[in-house]
Amino acid sequence: MDVIGEWWTPLVLRDLFAGITRFEDLRRDLGVASNVLADRLATLTKHGIVERRRYRDNPPRFEYVLTAKGRDLFPAIAALMRWGDRWASADGAAPALLVHRDCGKATGAVVVCERCGGELTAANTEAVAGPAGRVGPGTMVIGPMLAERAVAHGRRPSRLRTKRSRRT
Amino acid sequence: MDVIGEWWTPLVLRDLFAGITRFEDLRRDLGVASNVLADRLATLTKHGIVERRRYRDNPPRFEYVLTAKGRDLFPAIAALMRWGDRWASADGAAPALLVHRDCGKATGAVVVCERCGGELTAANTEAVAGPAGRVGPGTMVIGPMLAERAVAHGRRPSRLRTKRSRRT
Repeated sequence: MDVIGEWWTPLVLRDLFAGITRFEDLRRDLGVASNVLADRLATLTKHGIVERRRYRDNPPRFEYVLTAKGRDLFPAIAALMRWGDRWASADGAAPALLVHRDCGKATGAVVVCERCGGELTAANTEAVAGPAGRVGPGTMVIGPMLAERAVAHGRRPSRLRTKRSRRT
Repeated sequence: MDVIGEWWTPLVLRDLFAGITRFEDLRRDLGVASNVLADRLATLTKHGIVERRRYRDNPPRFEYVLTAKGRDLFPAIAALMRWGDRWASADGAAPALLVHRDCGKATGAVVVCERCGGELTAANTEAVAGPAGRVGPGTMVIGPMLAERAVAHGRRPSRLRTKRSRRT
């Protein structure tokens, strides 16, 4: 989660998805300081979301291109855009539309179940502990809760690793 | 975007979706300082994502409950979880599974087109200017680019408002 953390990181990703890749274009579009943008792009590069390429030698100039891992963030961002259009736009007017080339229509993202195709909502889903479920900092309360639910769903409870049990 | 900005905000939302609502439980689960958590919850409350309710008077104690706007963030977060499971988990083991109650299966989120039901990806979609498309800080480069694409798609170009044209 810390990868897409800072509030304007989605704006950088938006620009990269749109095909703006040169440092100077990104800086001008976003209106941020060079050192701030460089720092953020370095983080995205470190996490394998963006690849840095030199496109001119003298003076050295770089462009930033999404990797496969970065491009795969698109569905989540499309879902977030949809939420923004629904709840956060002042007058209900979208700043951008998403055209789905396969059907040619302006569209919105719908998030569905990969098993049955039905829409996924907070109300019709439940999180349960997975194979890597654990109890520790960041999961002190939710860890045991999800493990109990996993048992209630007839799943093998995940091995609840705690800081203490790891040490012994 | 600034609403879900700080890196650990999705963790707060995760806890709220799981039913952890009391301040002290959230603090203990996340292992963050009280003032930091209070500050973050105040931001979420200000943006209408979370509602603050007093559940004890003396001493005053509060719980935090997702509003309809907050609960509607779920699909985007489910899509983000899916990305995290695919790319960011060290051993491919998910810390949590999502059970879709309607079909009873452990599932993953798929993001599809609301018009044709096909999957949406960076490769098969294109962003074009919408009715609220504009050129200004944050859209200096992308604004005209999306407007041109809108025209190429046979759409009426959005009114390109700039800081200057707004003033005059």
